[in-house]
Amino acid sequence: MKKTLFLLSLMLAPLASQAAEIASPNGNMLLKFYIDDQGRPTYELNYKNRPVVLPSHLGLELAKDKHASRGLDERDLMDHFTLAGEQTTTFDETWKPVWGETATIRNHYVDYAATLLQQWKEPRAPQRTIIIRFRVYDDGIGLRYEFPQQKELNYFLIKEEHTEFSMAGDHTAWWLPGDYDTQEQETQQTKLSEIRARMQQAVNWGNSSVAVFSPTGVQTSLQMKSDDGLYINIHEAACLDYATMHLELVDAQTKALTTELGGGSNAYTPAPKPSPYPLPRPFTFVSHLTPDATGLKGAMQTPCQTPWRTVMVSDDARDMLSSNLILNLNEPCALDDTSWIHPTKYCGVWWEMIVGKSSWNYTDEFPSIKLDNIDWKKVKPNGRHAANNEKVKRYIDFAAKNGLDEVLVEGWNVGWEDWANMWKRDVFDFQTAYPDFDLKMLNDYAHSKGVKLLMHHETSSSTQNYERHLEKAFQLMNRYGYDAVKTGYVGDIIPRGDHHYSQSMNNHYLHVVKEAAKHHIMVNAHEATRPTGICRTYPNMVGNESARGTEYEAFGGSRPDHTCILPFTRLQGGPMDYTPGIFVTRLKEWSNNDSWARITIAGSLALYLTMYSPLQMAADLPEHYERFDDAFQFIRDVACDWDESIYLEAEPADYITVARKAKGTPNWFIGGKCDENGHEAVVKLDFLEKGRKYQCTIYQDAPNAHYETNPQAYVITKKTVKAGQTLKLKEAPGGGFAVSLFPIP
Amino acid sequence: MKKTLFLLSLMLAPLASQAAEIASPNGNMLLKFYIDDQGRPTYELNYKNRPVVLPSHLGLELAKDKHASRGLDERDLMDHFTLAGEQTTTFDETWKPVWGETATIRNHYVDYAATLLQQWKEPRAPQRTIIIRFRVYDDGIGLRYEFPQQKELNYFLIKEEHTEFSMAGDHTAWWLPGDYDTQEQETQQTKLSEIRARMQQAVNWGNSSVAVFSPTGVQTSLQMKSDDGLYINIHEAACLDYATMHLELVDAQTKALTTELGGGSNAYTPAPKPSPYPLPRPFTFVSHLTPDATGLKGAMQTPCQTPWRTVMVSDDARDMLSSNLILNLNEPCALDDTSWIHPTKYCGVWWEMIVGKSSWNYTDEFPSIKLDNIDWKKVKPNGRHAANNEKVKRYIDFAAKNGLDEVLVEGWNVGWEDWANMWKRDVFDFQTAYPDFDLKMLNDYAHSKGVKLLMHHETSSSTQNYERHLEKAFQLMNRYGYDAVKTGYVGDIIPRGDHHYSQSMNNHYLHVVKEAAKHHIMVNAHEATRPTGICRTYPNMVGNESARGTEYEAFGGSRPDHTCILPFTRLQGGPMDYTPGIFVTRLKEWSNNDSWARITIAGSLALYLTMYSPLQMAADLPEHYERFDDAFQFIRDVACDWDESIYLEAEPADYITVARKAKGTPNWFIGGKCDENGHEAVVKLDFLEKGRKYQCTIYQDAPNAHYETNPQAYVITKKTVKAGQTLKLKEAPGGGFAVSLFPIP
Repeated sequence: MKKTLFLLSLMLAPLASQAAEIASPNGNMLLKFYIDDQGRPTYELNYKNRPVVLPSHLGLELAKDKHASRGLDERDLMDHFTLAGEQTTTFDETWKPVWGETATIRNHYVDYAATLLQQWKEPRAPQRTIIIRFRVYDDGIGLRYEFPQQKELNYFLIKEEHTEFSMAGDHTAWWLPGDYDTQEQETQQTKLSEIRARMQQAVNWGNSSVAVFSPTGVQTSLQMKSDDGLYINIHEAACLDYATMHLELVDAQTKALTTELGGGSNAYTPAPKPSPYPLPRPFTFVSHLTPDATGLKGAMQTPCQTPWRTVMVSDDARDMLSSNLILNLNEPCALDDTSWIHPTKYCGVWWEMIVGKSSWNYTDEFPSIKLDNIDWKKVKPNGRHAANNEKVKRYIDFAAKNGLDEVLVEGWNVGWEDWANMWKRDVFDFQTAYPDFDLKMLNDYAHSKGVKLLMHHETSSSTQNYERHLEKAFQLMNRYGYDAVKTGYVGDIIPRGDHHYSQSMNNHYLHVVKEAAKHHIMVNAHEATRPTGICRTYPNMVGNESARGTEYEAFGGSRPDHTCILPFTRLQGGPMDYTPGIFVTRLKEWSNNDSWARITIAGSLALYLTMYSPLQMAADLPEHYERFDDAFQFIRDVACDWDESIYLEAEPADYITVARKAKGTPNWFIGGKCDENGHEAVVKLDFLEKGRKYQCTIYQDAPNAHYETNPQAYVITKKTVKAGQTLKLKEAPGGGFAVSLFPIP
Repeated sequence: MKKTLFLLSLMLAPLASQAAEIASPNGNMLLKFYIDDQGRPTYELNYKNRPVVLPSHLGLELAKDKHASRGLDERDLMDHFTLAGEQTTTFDETWKPVWGETATIRNHYVDYAATLLQQWKEPRAPQRTIIIRFRVYDDGIGLRYEFPQQKELNYFLIKEEHTEFSMAGDHTAWWLPGDYDTQEQETQQTKLSEIRARMQQAVNWGNSSVAVFSPTGVQTSLQMKSDDGLYINIHEAACLDYATMHLELVDAQTKALTTELGGGSNAYTPAPKPSPYPLPRPFTFVSHLTPDATGLKGAMQTPCQTPWRTVMVSDDARDMLSSNLILNLNEPCALDDTSWIHPTKYCGVWWEMIVGKSSWNYTDEFPSIKLDNIDWKKVKPNGRHAANNEKVKRYIDFAAKNGLDEVLVEGWNVGWEDWANMWKRDVFDFQTAYPDFDLKMLNDYAHSKGVKLLMHHETSSSTQNYERHLEKAFQLMNRYGYDAVKTGYVGDIIPRGDHHYSQSMNNHYLHVVKEAAKHHIMVNAHEATRPTGICRTYPNMVGNESARGTEYEAFGGSRPDHTCILPFTRLQGGPMDYTPGIFVTRLKEWSNNDSWARITIAGSLALYLTMYSPLQMAADLPEHYERFDDAFQFIRDVACDWDESIYLEAEPADYITVARKAKGTPNWFIGGKCDENGHEAVVKLDFLEKGRKYQCTIYQDAPNAHYETNPQAYVITKKTVKAGQTLKLKEAPGGGFAVSLFPIP
């Protein structure tokens, strides 16, 4: 690990308002920062002399609180700034993630911190200081606001953050409707100018938008491509005790923001008021934070800072996937001991409930239940409860036989009879198993076979209830030998009125991760806020859902290009528990569900590589894998932690091809996934160790394979290869391929 | 203990809509119940053939929730009802409170349950059943709504409860402005017709109203007196997981309710919408529940019920004070073991901070603090921190010498530097003592002298933070030997937007009491919701503030009649930690505080009897008590748990005289307190044991005593008395008297 720190310049005296220009280490990225004539902080970004971000303002509007006289500051942090000091440093360090796509990560940037003084003409008006800090990387920038502790700025409430990202043209964008409570929609692909027209369709069609706030509001990470081939991605890093950021587009109509849809789809979301500040130029995104129940967007105490706002840029789409910018902008690991954190392959009692073949709940006897009132031993079972001793043992046997580490069991604990969306606070106790689930016996049985059970805590978004039970729930896990939990946040947040992506909820998710770490428990949160690289700091956060996962294949299906978009968008912030591996794609074959997965078996295998995660599920039923045991061999073989990763081919929504070297081994795996049009991957094996022969097994779509008409047609080929050779691999529509490469001794 | 249950009638077949008439056991109270021609449940109440409640409707308006299609019921429960069944039973039981004003309490009532069926004309419209239950006592009634579990009514959200109390005339009322977050105002005394005109003054003057919702909104318990001498009190009992009720008056102007002030004084309270139902007659109070952050007033799951709505009536004001109706309407004790619960006299490190002489916080060095960032050993003390080892030992010595059980110490734990109203979530950890407070040493020192320390948990209303720390905070108390905690809820509730008296906050307070009971900890919550007799069920809830306490004597003062009102209003629901005993009433004598207590020393002694509580503080400084040690003898002697209590004289806002027999002893104590006009109490000693002589010590205002000009003038007289004698005791303006009676062996 090397670490260098150069202090380039330090000037604390007030400066003439000339522009600062900061180049990235290799000079490709050029940042310009200045104060405009209204005293507004402004930045621009160029990449290889091409404009990426046109002049864009930075600032925050503060809420007018009733406690202003008692110390809460209220004047906006928008204008009346002068540049009081600048500091530029270069940083270069290589660090080792606990798990990841590569064994080491280089963090190399130029840091530029502008100290801004806000002054007003009136006598006795407050003088306040903020710092705007940029980190300029070769593949993008991060910027954030820092608020030093000072007499005139101790506490403040955020009405809105106004960070602008003014795009240089009418780019193509892959976007989700901005929403305070879900990010499980299908991605829309349109020009920026088409977002407004597409919004209603995006909201209505095949997704679960619940709290849309604007006709031009979109989520991050937002992937774009310019007409001249620049790939641009806007997201955020290290969103800890702060609201999740959305983006609102000022489009060609330059209409006032936040109008038509404001609050319409969520009766409890107060309609935001228009900002008093002038609208920026068209094609500008402005930050839009997730509010709390009162409509406020943050309560801050200095010293503090916002998350990093990130812009990643390249003329090569593969750089979007290999970038570590967001991880690098997070703080180093905060845990002293990480030896208990491990990559995990798992199966689970889950898919059959998602499909509707069996149930989470144990009984259908009651129209509603209260945990305290029911003697579970006396209730009438519905005969469809999946998390029963017999079935779980079957899954444990399957995991043990196939080298899977853990078995997730959902529906093990009482409360599923009426768990969602009824505004029930005391919905689960996270302690009491259904009568047909023997906690001790099943854990003992699993451990005797070298397998662990993976805990499930559906909170039903009743976070108050979960926090009340958290310590005892983790104690129970420790007692029985669980070391990982999948949490869930389905439904409306309790306390009522709060949103999934608000400051308080983001604090809650992190609280759970920190408390779990004390118990040596890994966390995989579903329906929580989209990640922003926090797993660097808390590597026990091994996964998140936070996007449209495989479950939607049972809810009408996702488009075949969905998994060729997610690595450009959702995965920028951290791994996704996508739960891949559906081999029997027509659910009707074994259930009453008419939905079907738009993917081939070879395509499903590819996802274990193209969708990086240290936590990988084999989501289909054991009996389905047993039908295709030769293909399942790849899932048995594939790693989920890596020394090296090389993105070979990539184009958003079209195809992704990646080669990865399994951590601590000489084994390589290659995966390719494509959209509905098919793809031919050309893979040069020049990453293999020279002079060494490899047993190469190729899992490939059959020539007549097709995600709709012939998804189970695959061909497995074995051959010996060596460095320098080229594989040409044809991927069917909605298909893909997977390759394992083991050195021949 | 005797318990009898008579089943008078049971009819489940639909009934002709004739009125039911239910008389109380002695026949004085007569309830009439019927369904009116709109299908609205209606009741009337007479007392000794005089109208108390004119025809008044009952019902609930439900909120229209986005999840209606998924099982939440939305049609109002207001009309379209028919009477489907009736059940009348008589109940008579005598029970023993763990602590109280009397050794036993008789619970004798006639219970009338009307089963109502709600039907609509449309086919397939839901058919729903509710029960309205009345308990008719000789001194009043309780009524509540019960919602059985049923197919058509499983979950619902309350928009508003519309329980009417239609008064028969323009009574005199003692009221507080309705407010979602404070009940610490001075009581207003006006005619009902004058409430609207007085409201603005009541809100502005000498109180801390923060979330007033209506120009005619008042709080309960509301004490009234009719022109013909009936005393009527409206309150509630057993408010557990439900919002606290206010009352909104339909006054002579019959204006729409909730208009002028709605939301005006709290930027975050959404203005309530007017009800679609017709307004009732003038002088009618309608229930108004405390909303949550979204404006909703309750999330319910059947089977469930509302709290009891109570109307107490008598033609003798003393009956208002001796009534046990509210306790009786609560469920029996839920704790198996109550041996650890004990009456407590205490002093504490508190008054000198309230007065401003010393501070809760340890340092003035920082404009704001974050608990994690400060090395407390290195900070600069401000020299005014009261909770220091030396001072606390002084209080322990004082308590030990004077037979006080415990010593409260506020400001012992880090975080007081910027604790209130800054929207800080992580404001206290309830674990870390300031460097000058030695937790172990001080507890050991206290225990060695037979005294306990009394814990203090100011939550700053950051309930999420408190719940996160609750278990460890109680563990710390157990570890060091604390058995009681004073909690505080100053400032705005976090989660933001919630209110002190909402359903979720009421659930929180109860959660704390229940968790405390597991640790054998008694709870005394300040700024929490006004009590409703829950201490019967959870007798470790030994006190509450929930009104304007002695602290206001340092904030400008309270009127001399204040303590002659509280027993009629605030104390109906349970004991108040009023913290009496200020001997040096002119604070200027020992501080820079210009405020002064409007009471004489003899009056202060009286409060230990007239303001019943099992928890009684001697609030003034030890050195002040040492100056008046002969008067302090009464505080040393007086009990705070009783076998018998006899209210001898009472008139709201004028005077109260009570005699009490100390539990398990033959000793009697008598107290009398009056308003600014003085009073002559005539006390017949016919409650003393006949044939026995008593050593009688009278602590009385001197002839020239006056709360303003001569508050410290008292006379102590000792004599021998026996049953049958009469004491005439003159009370000065703002004064009172106290008497102890010990049998002579």
